[in-house]
Amino acid sequence: MRIFVPFDARDPKTRLSSVLDADERASVAQAMLRDVLAALAETTHTPVVLATDSVDCAVPVRVDDRPLTPAVNDALTDVDGSAAVVMADLALATPAAIERLFATDGDLVLAPGLGGGTNALVARHPDFRVDYHGGSYHDHREAAAAVGADVAVLDSFRLAVDVDAPRHLAEVLLHTDGHTAACLRQIGVELTRTEGHVAVTRSTENRS
Amino acid sequence: MRIFVPFDARDPKTRLSSVLDADERASVAQAMLRDVLAALAETTHTPVVLATDSVDCAVPVRVDDRPLTPAVNDALTDVDGSAAVVMADLALATPAAIERLFATDGDLVLAPGLGGGTNALVARHPDFRVDYHGGSYHDHREAAAAVGADVAVLDSFRLAVDVDAPRHLAEVLLHTDGHTAACLRQIGVELTRTEGHVAVTRSTENRS
Repeated sequence: MRIFVPFDARDPKTRLSSVLDADERASVAQAMLRDVLAALAETTHTPVVLATDSVDCAVPVRVDDRPLTPAVNDALTDVDGSAAVVMADLALATPAAIERLFATDGDLVLAPGLGGGTNALVARHPDFRVDYHGGSYHDHREAAAAVGADVAVLDSFRLAVDVDAPRHLAEVLLHTDGHTAACLRQIGVELTRTEGHVAVTRSTENRS
Repeated sequence: MRIFVPFDARDPKTRLSSVLDADERASVAQAMLRDVLAALAETTHTPVVLATDSVDCAVPVRVDDRPLTPAVNDALTDVDGSAAVVMADLALATPAAIERLFATDGDLVLAPGLGGGTNALVARHPDFRVDYHGGSYHDHREAAAAVGADVAVLDSFRLAVDVDAPRHLAEVLLHTDGHTAACLRQIGVELTRTEGHVAVTRSTENRS
């Protein structure tokens, strides 16, 4: 199986701008990519990073500066057999969650993200193509139906959290101890407890 | 196994006040309870609703008007053997997710919620007691360690979403078609698509 990990190498994670400046967002995005690649490294498949620009990482990189959807679909066109697309911002991903994704039967296996996106998928049908945007989860289901592909959905919290809002940083610090958590701690992002849930703050001394 | 479903029968879901008035919040909370009980009904165990006041539902109700933590711990004290606590606001719960929870080995099995809470648990250790508040997930891990109970964590998106913020209503409408989704649609809560994700609005004509 071919595995693609799309990565925005240029201006990643703009929705984190309220807590992280551009350099910090780039560092966090790189750390998340490393965590996702580390989880994938425990499987028997070697991923390809599908990046908008050159990126320094331990696996092959395919540079395509087009938007996500045409870049992924072009990559899928080159695949003879099954393919997976795993987003680079799944900082909570574990080998076990990835293995469950890959082991789920179905022409199309979807791991939904919070807010209606598609965080990871396995495509085992030659005619399926992606369409990423707000609400891609439902549209991917419809796209599968349109080509006669049956759909399975993976129930995974760890693959549902794509880190693109400040509250998701709390999930990283609560549930992981990898590159991303270390990067956030170095920046000064810390867990705080409120009445109803856990959130994050950042220490002012580390604010650039 | 004894299963307890804590339910706030008095002023539920105050964090949804920005989109739902008090009567609507009560209706949505009741609908979520029905969805959770419907998912549990597919298992071989009969739950008990642990409510702060009398509540109309199809299973036994134990009324305890104390806060969540002492009410649950008192209920656990009466159990000889294993017990589960499943929150009443897990509108995305499915029989499959519940079965995975119950089938997971461990003295304590935790299904973490978004924001660091504990949405569901199975306790198979006589000395484990709960402590619900912001950040209970980590504290439950520590409480288990303190009594020598080993901990397993369930990776479930469907049990991670406790519906207590407006954005969680989008998850209900995206991923379920039960009592809660019907209740939300009747109130006029609808999905909208934005650039990055799916959110909800409510139609003004239904606004009371």
